[in-house]
Amino acid sequence: MKNFRHPHRPKKSSLVIGPSAVKEAILSGNQLDRIYIDAKAQNKAIDEIKTLASRHNIPVNYVPAVKLNSFNITDHDGCVAQIAKVQYHDLQEIISFVVGKGEVPLFLILDSITDIRNIGGIARTSFCCGVHAIIIPDKGVGALNEDAILTSAGALEKIPVCRVSSLMKAVDELHLNGIKVFASEIKGSRDIFDCSFKEPCAIVMGSEEKGIYPALLKICDEKIKIPMKGNFDSLNVSVATGMILYEVMRQRMQ
Amino acid sequence: MKNFRHPHRPKKSSLVIGPSAVKEAILSGNQLDRIYIDAKAQNKAIDEIKTLASRHNIPVNYVPAVKLNSFNITDHDGCVAQIAKVQYHDLQEIISFVVGKGEVPLFLILDSITDIRNIGGIARTSFCCGVHAIIIPDKGVGALNEDAILTSAGALEKIPVCRVSSLMKAVDELHLNGIKVFASEIKGSRDIFDCSFKEPCAIVMGSEEKGIYPALLKICDEKIKIPMKGNFDSLNVSVATGMILYEVMRQRMQ
Repeated sequence: MKNFRHPHRPKKSSLVIGPSAVKEAILSGNQLDRIYIDAKAQNKAIDEIKTLASRHNIPVNYVPAVKLNSFNITDHDGCVAQIAKVQYHDLQEIISFVVGKGEVPLFLILDSITDIRNIGGIARTSFCCGVHAIIIPDKGVGALNEDAILTSAGALEKIPVCRVSSLMKAVDELHLNGIKVFASEIKGSRDIFDCSFKEPCAIVMGSEEKGIYPALLKICDEKIKIPMKGNFDSLNVSVATGMILYEVMRQRMQ
Repeated sequence: MKNFRHPHRPKKSSLVIGPSAVKEAILSGNQLDRIYIDAKAQNKAIDEIKTLASRHNIPVNYVPAVKLNSFNITDHDGCVAQIAKVQYHDLQEIISFVVGKGEVPLFLILDSITDIRNIGGIARTSFCCGVHAIIIPDKGVGALNEDAILTSAGALEKIPVCRVSSLMKAVDELHLNGIKVFASEIKGSRDIFDCSFKEPCAIVMGSEEKGIYPALLKICDEKIKIPMKGNFDSLNVSVATGMILYEVMRQRMQ
């Protein structure tokens, strides 16, 4: 679907401005989507922010000063953070919580799906299908802002999102917890209706253009595909995700 | 997904201008998406176009002259037609063709889904899932133009589209051909995995806001629903269509 893309300019009310305010926000546990640091800024306060960001797993974008100025704010002293609209969760905590409730884990991993509206749409479907959490990388994906929440019809405020520094490590973590990881691929070796989704599992979806990153694909347990009747390139990723999650739900309900 | 909507202004090259050219286009069998007639124009040539349009099942929009002038054309004499980008087919002909090939008919009926990009997206999924034709009403739905074709990733040029003056009559025609008609509804009485889609059938999808028109719903054979795990309002119509068509495909492949 053709989208009208706004130039990305966050609302002032969603920003924390200046290194000391950003430091305070991190230390008081406020969730931040992203920290923008002037690439040329070099001082102790900025260094401290970099260390804290790394420790708290908050993505940092190094930008030219003109980018920070474009937010229409003054006195940013080379550092601005964006408050998260979506609450991010720790993957291991979610796994433990789900298992503790006696439910069979179901996770969705989005690789190279960078359009936040696509993520919003997928979040809506995921919530309807009982996915326990969506796992996204912290690089390449924009902040899950109002647009993403709107596209998700509010589901992004209900379904847990885990933002991880490496999808490879996330898959390792899933494996350590006994969760099987399926990769959806056009050239997958098995039709989804021939797979068993009754066990704890995660599904990896790639973008329509790029598919799944080869190294990630390699550590997945099984490559699965949606059967096709018509001779055509591919399904839309949001629709494909819906079909797979429906199949999981169907198997688990029967 | 939030779409940027262009004001609808067809390209000059896709227009037939003036009553005599429009008459010729109709009589020579050119497919027309829509005829625009100046609501105040009254003369023999215009009357003839109205009669021909009705006989050939071409939608007519009666518009103020200013609308015709906005197409940046002169000498339209109160009548302009838009050449169809998508080839429309006769429903009975398609049914006979499918049955003749020995295939089990599968049709998709779109009620109150007026956004042509939504129709494009659904056409892409339909083509992948082996739908034989998409049935749309000739009123309320805009011309299936370049935008729709783009959203369909070209599928709208491959899958037959039947544009009918009444969806009620289309359902009657399907019934006369022994084709069962399922209506997808949030309050449907049966989960889709409990329905049998192995017989000739058609699926009616309504819009997320309006659902299916009550009179149409009434003459459908069964009201079906997609099971939901999460307590949420609804799925996106394009995703819901994908899930149902997947279920049909799954049953027919097994």
